[in-house]
Amino acid sequence: MEYCDAINKLPDSEENGLYGKNLLRTWDMSDDDIKAIARGTCALKSLRDNNVSPKIFDSGIAVSMFSKKDMGMELAFASGCDLLGLTIIDMDRKLGNNNIKETATMASYMADALGVCESDFIEKSSRYIKRISDSVEEAQKNGVVAQKPCVINLGSDEDSPVQSIADFQYMAEHFGGIEELKGKKIAVTWAYSPNGTRSLAVPQGILSLFTRFGMNVVLAAPEGMDLMPDVYERAEKNAERSGGTFVRTDSMEEAFSDADVVIPINWAPFTFLEKRTELSAANLGTYIDLLEHELRENNKEFINWEVTEELMEKTKDGKALLMHDIPADVTDISCIRGEMTAQVYNANLESLLKEAGNRPYVIAAMIILSKSEDPKAAFKTIAERATKRYF
Amino acid sequence: MEYCDAINKLPDSEENGLYGKNLLRTWDMSDDDIKAIARGTCALKSLRDNNVSPKIFDSGIAVSMFSKKDMGMELAFASGCDLLGLTIIDMDRKLGNNNIKETATMASYMADALGVCESDFIEKSSRYIKRISDSVEEAQKNGVVAQKPCVINLGSDEDSPVQSIADFQYMAEHFGGIEELKGKKIAVTWAYSPNGTRSLAVPQGILSLFTRFGMNVVLAAPEGMDLMPDVYERAEKNAERSGGTFVRTDSMEEAFSDADVVIPINWAPFTFLEKRTELSAANLGTYIDLLEHELRENNKEFINWEVTEELMEKTKDGKALLMHDIPADVTDISCIRGEMTAQVYNANLESLLKEAGNRPYVIAAMIILSKSEDPKAAFKTIAERATKRYF
Amino acid sequence: MEYCDAINKLPDSEENGLYGKNLLRTWDMSDDDIKAIARGTCALKSLRDNNVSPKIFDSGIAVSMFSKKDMGMELAFASGCDLLGLTIIDMDRKLGNNNIKETATMASYMADALGVCESDFIEKSSRYIKRISDSVEEAQKNGVVAQKPCVINLGSDEDSPVQSIADFQYMAEHFGGIEELKGKKIAVTWAYSPNGTRSLAVPQGILSLFTRFGMNVVLAAPEGMDLMPDVYERAEKNAERSGGTFVRTDSMEEAFSDADVVIPINWAPFTFLEKRTELSAANLGTYIDLLEHELRENNKEFINWEVTEELMEKTKDGKALLMHDIPADVTDISCIRGEMTAQVYNANLESLLKEAGNRPYVIAAMIILSKSEDPKAAFKTIAERATKRYF
Repeated sequence: MEYCDAINKLPDSEENGLYGKNLLRTWDMSDDDIKAIARGTCALKSLRDNNVSPKIFDSGIAVSMFSKKDMGMELAFASGCDLLGLTIIDMDRKLGNNNIKETATMASYMADALGVCESDFIEKSSRYIKRISDSVEEAQKNGVVAQKPCVINLGSDEDSPVQSIADFQYMAEHFGGIEELKGKKIAVTWAYSPNGTRSLAVPQGILSLFTRFGMNVVLAAPEGMDLMPDVYERAEKNAERSGGTFVRTDSMEEAFSDADVVIPINWAPFTFLEKRTELSAANLGTYIDLLEHELRENNKEFINWEVTEELMEKTKDGKALLMHDIPADVTDISCIRGEMTAQVYNANLESLLKEAGNRPYVIAAMIILSKSEDPKAAFKTIAERATKRYF
Repeated sequence: MEYCDAINKLPDSEENGLYGKNLLRTWDMSDDDIKAIARGTCALKSLRDNNVSPKIFDSGIAVSMFSKKDMGMELAFASGCDLLGLTIIDMDRKLGNNNIKETATMASYMADALGVCESDFIEKSSRYIKRISDSVEEAQKNGVVAQKPCVINLGSDEDSPVQSIADFQYMAEHFGGIEELKGKKIAVTWAYSPNGTRSLAVPQGILSLFTRFGMNVVLAAPEGMDLMPDVYERAEKNAERSGGTFVRTDSMEEAFSDADVVIPINWAPFTFLEKRTELSAANLGTYIDLLEHELRENNKEFINWEVTEELMEKTKDGKALLMHDIPADVTDISCIRGEMTAQVYNANLESLLKEAGNRPYVIAAMIILSKSEDPKAAFKTIAERATKRYF
Repeated sequence: MEYCDAINKLPDSEENGLYGKNLLRTWDMSDDDIKAIARGTCALKSLRDNNVSPKIFDSGIAVSMFSKKDMGMELAFASGCDLLGLTIIDMDRKLGNNNIKETATMASYMADALGVCESDFIEKSSRYIKRISDSVEEAQKNGVVAQKPCVINLGSDEDSPVQSIADFQYMAEHFGGIEELKGKKIAVTWAYSPNGTRSLAVPQGILSLFTRFGMNVVLAAPEGMDLMPDVYERAEKNAERSGGTFVRTDSMEEAFSDADVVIPINWAPFTFLEKRTELSAANLGTYIDLLEHELRENNKEFINWEVTEELMEKTKDGKALLMHDIPADVTDISCIRGEMTAQVYNANLESLLKEAGNRPYVIAAMIILSKSEDPKAAFKTIAERATKRYF
């Protein structure tokens, strides 16, 4: 069966670099770690298609903490954990207001996974998540907890590893394997949205990951629409090391030209996010509203950064793979003017929905790789046991 | 054992009309479908009384979406799904604000059941639920999801199939079988409540269902306290076809006279609900408050529409079965003047609580019938396996 | 293995005083009941350390109702119930606004455990919880529910049995057994917090429980910082009966002198809580704010009621066990001036985190003792079966 191939390529106990690790940023993981997660994702999907249950926990909880609602990621975390037998407890609270060490430890007493989404505060959110991760490791070292939950970043100010690895695996499925991605042209482009205040986690996550595998990544954005400074440097080094390229442009047309994959995405500029974080720390809510209003007004200048059928025509054979971390802001469907036209959205909707469907499996794969010393053996046991998920 | 009888009457793969179906309105289901759900309910109750677990899922999630809190139905959905082995994820959000296709698909990636409760917008709520149902079917057809969750209407503007089938089965238990319901007189009567703004789902659901099985259904309501126009027509056709009757009156006394079953229930008139939906679409919250205030003032004219001991005396042998989709508004208990007196409530409380207890089993039966090609075989496997739910 | 000892001391069917019981207050339980819960806690911890699953439910739900957020106890209840195989449904609502009998019964239809936390209304909250307990028992007696959930008090106005038994067991672990607690000096002292409005449940629970086992309990509090009157009487009778002592003082130094265990804790005076409950019943929110403000101002007089390193030096060998039902208000960490200094907190943090880790196991032990006629046999089955919780 298909899943046997993926299982055979999984790391065994000698090779598993993720054993006991938390999963905060892709750039803390090796290329082999990333491939292992992608292959685990593939194996889990295939097992499910064959109605084989990968339940490895007889009981146990997974705790999620979302600083704000994110239906897609909430469902992905819940589904991925359930697949392995974990019960989901959603804590639904802001991290900043708590004693993080106490909170993280209390959440860890009996948890096997801890999913954290906190993206509002630039350069601070990831420090919160890191402190959770450190507290959990300390609790294990001191014998405060019997087991260490695997901490998973579900979206911070700087990375969204679940999204970027789900997309990486989706491209691999589309083009016939991870190896086939080498040399592909990927256009990541800022796109207009009337909302305009989305975090940098997804574009930064994609650029930081895709440049590692020999692809030719082009980033298109209007002047001033900057990401965090270190992401450009990282993308360049990655490209150099992997034999790909990383190029920046302020032309959507140039990025789309002959592209194999196009990824329109809206984000707020780094400088705006810095100011907002400052105002937030000073409890100046009214001025945040004003700042967001000004951003939206300024963004109207870039209303033409919209994916149209004409632009899609310019891509490789006019058939580039369109990817997006839905929900998308679509012209004439969810807003008057958005990231892409209704025609482009509708023509690609089936694929967009399939892409998002990878996320629960990525999360489940991360947990297995972090909890199992020998993931290959664990997967073989699952496949041989062949427990039916549903009769 | 008792459950063997119910199991033997369940449909097999040739007969199961609900396989792969969503469950939105009873009038889209055949009489055999309804009986199959009632019998599945009966079998599940009996299995539980014998500590036999009907868990058919090794893992899997059930997603619920409630546009407003409904403790009874939330618990019923959660309990019914848990009984089969599904973990419950509550999405807790309004449907109207989302891109329904994306929302429904994201909720479906790994879900085996999807419960939706949305009743606020007359003639719109059921369209939302229908679009969810359609999106889920499309996602399955396009291979976006590995399995199709069974979509269950937990209460819309026009029907509440879980409540009406739970009540149907409760009457069958009370009178000794579905066949015994033929010829019984059922009084469904509007009753006063200081709240006054309840949806039409339950009275419409009851009238649409009970008239299909040869009962003599009387509907009593003050003039102007109308349901949606099509419900009367449907009830009349049903009665004619099934050999029962459907009569309308504006006298509670007349309805109660010699009745076997009495069902007091408060609802808001259709014309009020139409106006409120209009105001809501126009974001005119203040005027909604005013509209609801006027309704409550007008309703005071009908303060005598209250079930009293005297009225109960007029029923068949003075011992009609009193039914209600609790919570009830009870005079001297939860309000100064309500749907029934405290004496009537207290004398019937044990039965009212038993009636509501059928709902989780109805939901579980719906899921098994929708997910199993051959429900009879599935139930036989459950009974033979005889897994203890609890040791 | 270690858990075998604890299991051998568990009650069998002749001895189990908790079978079928609800768990509302420790003073309604016998000494043997308390010891059985402590031993069950010990056995469950040890089973988990050995990766043996104590799952006794194949399916089933546990319902929680918290009148306000309490992350630690919410996680404890969820984790403890999950350990046994129950799925958690959180109802998240205030009890006072509902028809308690209907609410309790609806929550009980398929529940095996019902956790209730309601502490805001002095002398009323516990009556709410008692009515839930009574309603559940009545529902079982009348055949309305197939099984009776075990009702657990997760914190009321007068007791917090999960917290006090978790602490009791933690002391037993620390000193080498329940028997070793006899003669130990326990200092329970009021401590300053800028918040100042915490309930009496934990201090009253600790005093009512610890005085039953031959310990020498000293309660230190500023004048006027009273608990409910009956708690002093109970503590005195307990001490007399068990061969321990119960002494009150207004000197923190005196309490700490030569103490084996010190428990700093903030609470609001009984008279304040009485007034606040009155104002709350009268819906006078503004005056509640004023009352709380006055309390906080008055409390500033007692700002020196803070655990310092100097005070810790006065304890037995300068090494008393410091206990606290975290989260704690710590000087320089969570506030300018709090219950203890940062030095004291940091020096004891590992132990404080371990102490709080007992709570999920206490809850699981309570459920097993209440649901199993013969808990010793149930635990033996678990140990022999030796199902791995996780592979």
